Amino acid sequence: MITKEKIAEAYQLIQDEICSGLELTDGSAKFQEELWQRDGGGGGRTRIIQGGSIIEKGGVNFSAVHGKLPETVKKALGVAEDDFFATGVSIVIHPNHPWVPIIHMNIRYFEMTGESDKDLRWFGGGIDLTPHYVIEEDARFFHAKLKQTCDQFQSEFYVKFKKWADDYFYIKHRQETRGVGGIFYDRLTPYSTGLEWEEIFEFSKSVGRTFLPAYTELVQKNRIKSFTEEQKLWQFQRRSRYVEFNLVYDAGTRFGLETNGRIESILMSLPPQANWVYDFTAKEGSEEEKTLKMLKKDINWLS
Amino acid sequence: MITKEKIAEAYQLIQDEICSGLELTDGSAKFQEELWQRDGGGGGRTRIIQGGSIIEKGGVNFSAVHGKLPETVKKALGVAEDDFFATGVSIVIHPNHPWVPIIHMNIRYFEMTGESDKDLRWFGGGIDLTPHYVIEEDARFFHAKLKQTCDQFQSEFYVKFKKWADDYFYIKHRQETRGVGGIFYDRLTPYSTGLEWEEIFEFSKSVGRTFLPAYTELVQKNRIKSFTEEQKLWQFQRRSRYVEFNLVYDAGTRFGLETNGRIESILMSLPPQANWVYDFTAKEGSEEEKTLKMLKKDINWLS
Repeated sequence: MITKEKIAEAYQLIQDEICSGLELTDGSAKFQEELWQRDGGGGGRTRIIQGGSIIEKGGVNFSAVHGKLPETVKKALGVAEDDFFATGVSIVIHPNHPWVPIIHMNIRYFEMTGESDKDLRWFGGGIDLTPHYVIEEDARFFHAKLKQTCDQFQSEFYVKFKKWADDYFYIKHRQETRGVGGIFYDRLTPYSTGLEWEEIFEFSKSVGRTFLPAYTELVQKNRIKSFTEEQKLWQFQRRSRYVEFNLVYDAGTRFGLETNGRIESILMSLPPQANWVYDFTAKEGSEEEKTLKMLKKDINWLS
Repeated sequence: MITKEKIAEAYQLIQDEICSGLELTDGSAKFQEELWQRDGGGGGRTRIIQGGSIIEKGGVNFSAVHGKLPETVKKALGVAEDDFFATGVSIVIHPNHPWVPIIHMNIRYFEMTGESDKDLRWFGGGIDLTPHYVIEEDARFFHAKLKQTCDQFQSEFYVKFKKWADDYFYIKHRQETRGVGGIFYDRLTPYSTGLEWEEIFEFSKSVGRTFLPAYTELVQKNRIKSFTEEQKLWQFQRRSRYVEFNLVYDAGTRFGLETNGRIESILMSLPPQANWVYDFTAKEGSEEEKTLKMLKKDINWLS
């Protein structure tokens, strides 16, 4: 039987592996760790890396918190349970190089306990890629990696979770996706997946372990490219869309802000610099226009 | 009897006056106008000024729109009326100079008509100042100007609307106010104010006409100051808080995003550049620390 302690422990290991791997890839910057305690129970290890040779600002955060469920959340979830436990690893990396993509990953486990004897617990998570310039070959490579991970567990996972990511990482007011998507999933249980708890746990860890090889490959491939001042400005503009998504739509961010989470850990996802240019129009035939055309839902990158 | 046409006309005049005045103050940049039509009815005049000698990015927008009330809004307002009309002028100015404050102003009129014979209409609005560095003398000057305007109409307006602004322009997750506040008011009617409709309309116009002399004074006084690279970076950080407020809390912005408003007009309020620095701590005794200490509710600037 998997316990919440075991899950939290496995997630911490994954955090360690990813931090070591990212430091190696960056080659210059090191993570700074802050341990924090939550007033209501539990705490976390926030790890921030800044000013690297390729990573301008990034966070790889672990937390395991528990306590009483706020009334608003109970209402939203439609449950009577009083106590919750949540653990997860959350990553956002903003590279300094416009040809290297932004990446986000999250794996998490949530459970509620209380009066009823229902088994209210599930896994959630996802990885998605936000290139400043969409490179089709890279998007294919990224999605193939994710499909490989998914296929080891359930033949339907990739298609289902890829669509879920398209719908979730969508900037409605811009009518564009945040990037080229990836996978997103929530409330995975034996009931919703047909898998045993142990298998879902393994899947969650596999998603966590897909992050490093996938991202390292994309960093190494693109960091050697040269770029112009104009491309740098485009990067700042794309980052402003990332800000819009995270502050307006991202459920985790909004949940954190509303429940007095640790602000600096929650908002580490925001870029070091973002620019808003009024009514920018990409030149016809430009790389920027090409990118905007590919920020759409339902692109089958593996066809 | 004041009609909605008359109100819209007066607001357009105020937009014209303010645009002329800001061009004079800036001395270099000119407004670019875009006329737009709303699918459901009405339209607007978006006027953007960029790359000026003092205004880096600013918008002075007029709109007068009408149509069917979305079900969600009807529910939120608790009304059965089907048709609405809304007109207003909205301004946000981001100066390029860290010692010159950001300013925002809005005057608006809203009415609903439908089956009931209730008089469902009201005026709303406000002005607030967001200095990157709080200068007490300037905050006093600004609040005195607003009090002067308020006092011409109702002795209680200033105190009431000043408090309303403190509560409204508040970044809860940062536990700081957006700036030094100003005035904010909504749903002004004869019933809520004891004034005639004509007087409330005059008040709305007076608020609009307070903007230019108040801001011009603050621009001229501070634009001659020199500044350092460090102060410029602080300006970018303060602007990131402005982004957080507008995307997370501002009712007008969120309403616009949810109702498919004209995105570029709504988001013209976002700064040309904003920076997020992880866990920034102001040096003890610094100007930055002094500013953070004054970003609090309930400061009586006129005492």
